[in-house]
Amino acid sequence: MSLFSFSLKAQDGKARRGEILTPRGDIQTPAFMPVGTAASVKGMLPEQVRSTGADIILGNTYHLMLRPGAEEMAAMGGLHQFMRWERPILTDSGGYQVMSLTKLRKMSEEGVTFQSHIDGSKHRLTPERSMEIQRLLGSDIQMVLDECTPYPATHDEARLSMEQSMRWAARSKEAFGSQPGHACFGIQQGSTFEDLRQRSSEALREIGFDGYAVGGLAVGEGQGVMFQVLGFAVDMLPEDHPRYLMGVGKPDDLVGAVARGIDMFDCVLPTRSGRHGQAFTRRGTVNLRNARHAHDMRPLDEESPCPASSQFSRAYLHHLFKSGELLGQILLTWHNLAYYQELMKAMREAIEAGCFEAFCDDFHKLRAEGDIPAL
Amino acid sequence: MSLFSFSLKAQDGKARRGEILTPRGDIQTPAFMPVGTAASVKGMLPEQVRSTGADIILGNTYHLMLRPGAEEMAAMGGLHQFMRWERPILTDSGGYQVMSLTKLRKMSEEGVTFQSHIDGSKHRLTPERSMEIQRLLGSDIQMVLDECTPYPATHDEARLSMEQSMRWAARSKEAFGSQPGHACFGIQQGSTFEDLRQRSSEALREIGFDGYAVGGLAVGEGQGVMFQVLGFAVDMLPEDHPRYLMGVGKPDDLVGAVARGIDMFDCVLPTRSGRHGQAFTRRGTVNLRNARHAHDMRPLDEESPCPASSQFSRAYLHHLFKSGELLGQILLTWHNLAYYQELMKAMREAIEAGCFEAFCDDFHKLRAEGDIPAL
Repeated sequence: MSLFSFSLKAQDGKARRGEILTPRGDIQTPAFMPVGTAASVKGMLPEQVRSTGADIILGNTYHLMLRPGAEEMAAMGGLHQFMRWERPILTDSGGYQVMSLTKLRKMSEEGVTFQSHIDGSKHRLTPERSMEIQRLLGSDIQMVLDECTPYPATHDEARLSMEQSMRWAARSKEAFGSQPGHACFGIQQGSTFEDLRQRSSEALREIGFDGYAVGGLAVGEGQGVMFQVLGFAVDMLPEDHPRYLMGVGKPDDLVGAVARGIDMFDCVLPTRSGRHGQAFTRRGTVNLRNARHAHDMRPLDEESPCPASSQFSRAYLHHLFKSGELLGQILLTWHNLAYYQELMKAMREAIEAGCFEAFCDDFHKLRAEGDIPAL
Repeated sequence: MSLFSFSLKAQDGKARRGEILTPRGDIQTPAFMPVGTAASVKGMLPEQVRSTGADIILGNTYHLMLRPGAEEMAAMGGLHQFMRWERPILTDSGGYQVMSLTKLRKMSEEGVTFQSHIDGSKHRLTPERSMEIQRLLGSDIQMVLDECTPYPATHDEARLSMEQSMRWAARSKEAFGSQPGHACFGIQQGSTFEDLRQRSSEALREIGFDGYAVGGLAVGEGQGVMFQVLGFAVDMLPEDHPRYLMGVGKPDDLVGAVARGIDMFDCVLPTRSGRHGQAFTRRGTVNLRNARHAHDMRPLDEESPCPASSQFSRAYLHHLFKSGELLGQILLTWHNLAYYQELMKAMREAIEAGCFEAFCDDFHKLRAEGDIPAL
């Protein structure tokens, strides 16, 4: 038995219920990974993240390579020890942030050179260096370096970009080598083009990975186009490995993507929105800054096991945001992470029970009804 | 037996070990009260505050009367319910903040009118209204409205100010009326003048309060002058009631004030310093932003029961502050509150054991040695 394994436990239509086993613990799929960019899920203690039901979190290679640095992190015992999160961590390759956060970046066949957004210092990221950094961090699931093709792209642009990513995928896998208990995931590209997604999938299958991500989505194409691409792109990936949709998304994105066969997600939305006063609930989003909450004594979700959701009134949350109190950001981040994990759990149970379609109907119906106003 | 009572359990020199009983729980003295200005001890969950050993917190009447408002708070069930802190809360009168935070304020015998620092709206604070607000908030220990005499003051200025405060103290007590289980504390004024402190104490004794505060200190006079004033001012207050030094202070201020007979303290220092990267330890203050902590794997205090003190490395805390991560503010606030409570507990135990002087020697010796550098 492998130290890293994936097994399908149930399937309902295209929706999959699975389990990833790693030496650092199991990951129940469909899974949502809270984002811990700079060695911290913003505003949360590790045990609070875990208390919501998160099995795994994501760390950003770009941020961590710049601060504290990969070799520095390794010398300090690795990312898990540093941030006191004992369970699995997935790291991205750093490529996406290099493209979106840095200036004076220069791409070549070899890799990309760029200036740090922190202090302007020069750095180089190649497939080999990205994998080395992720290994130094101690990452459990390491992502290949790729180019996230900008949207929109012509067929020629998307093809050239995808082909570049596939050459980097091969070099990344080679650099990953053999790390028992750790996994290396490939990333499918090809923008919105079915033939390119197919060729990308074949290239990745040929290299062989422990899991497969769908990349190049959630980059401005909108949910309709994203679902359309997922409709053909996911089926191209091996059934016996986890499938990960990177950087997604809103609650209804997650439900629609699970319906199309996705097993894993990450997104900053629950944490970032929480810091800005927006709560996700089964009845849609609620802006706690709105004056209508000023005297609303109901909690966000009285049935939730999360203290942030069930023990504090909307009036109090409203007050905290109006007053600029840190605790507002903390409580709403916690609530949102708990809601996301509750949603994933509900989807897992629905797939197991063979009633995922009914779950989806209820999910959309409750959101359409919207929030119940206070008395 | 009264619903609110104070008993002395031990005495060592002037240092006192006591216990306040209230319907919302006991307060072991000497006690430090974390400040929860706007219905939140900044960055802390209520159970985290309690986990440090805090028996009671302080709320600011000025902030709460403006937002959410006193009548609004009462309609929502009071401050305890609002912020989910079930134990005792002491509220100040609002006078100090009106003097320091507002503009266009106008004092008269009746009270003070001022403009809100939030929206410029006009408000009036009189002894009667301050006590009414504190009652509406549900405060367990309510402070009389007074004027915190600015420093330095001439004898005449200090006398006029003190006499004004004593007339307001009488009106405050009258307005407080009878509230079983709740307490009303008077505030001694008189600046640095022994005769005025004496006259103020006599005036307060005559009115009769459940506890007595020393006001008008920690306003820029320095520790030397503060201790000098405490040296004569504290003894003037009734022995059979708690004595509260308002707005103090640094760890060595607390130790010196306990040595002079003070039972209660409040201060924003542990919370505010924590948000700015400064940790209080038995060996003095540590600035976590300093580069010397970048690879220091030691926790701030491995013996502390507080997770923030013992489970995270200085290197990690340094990283969080360099990265602007909320978690840095959270962890250091928690650590500082835990250190303050640990200090109070150590003082209580030393007084009980009759070795408070030795405790003070050790306290100062360890601080003089300073922080042990990392290997």
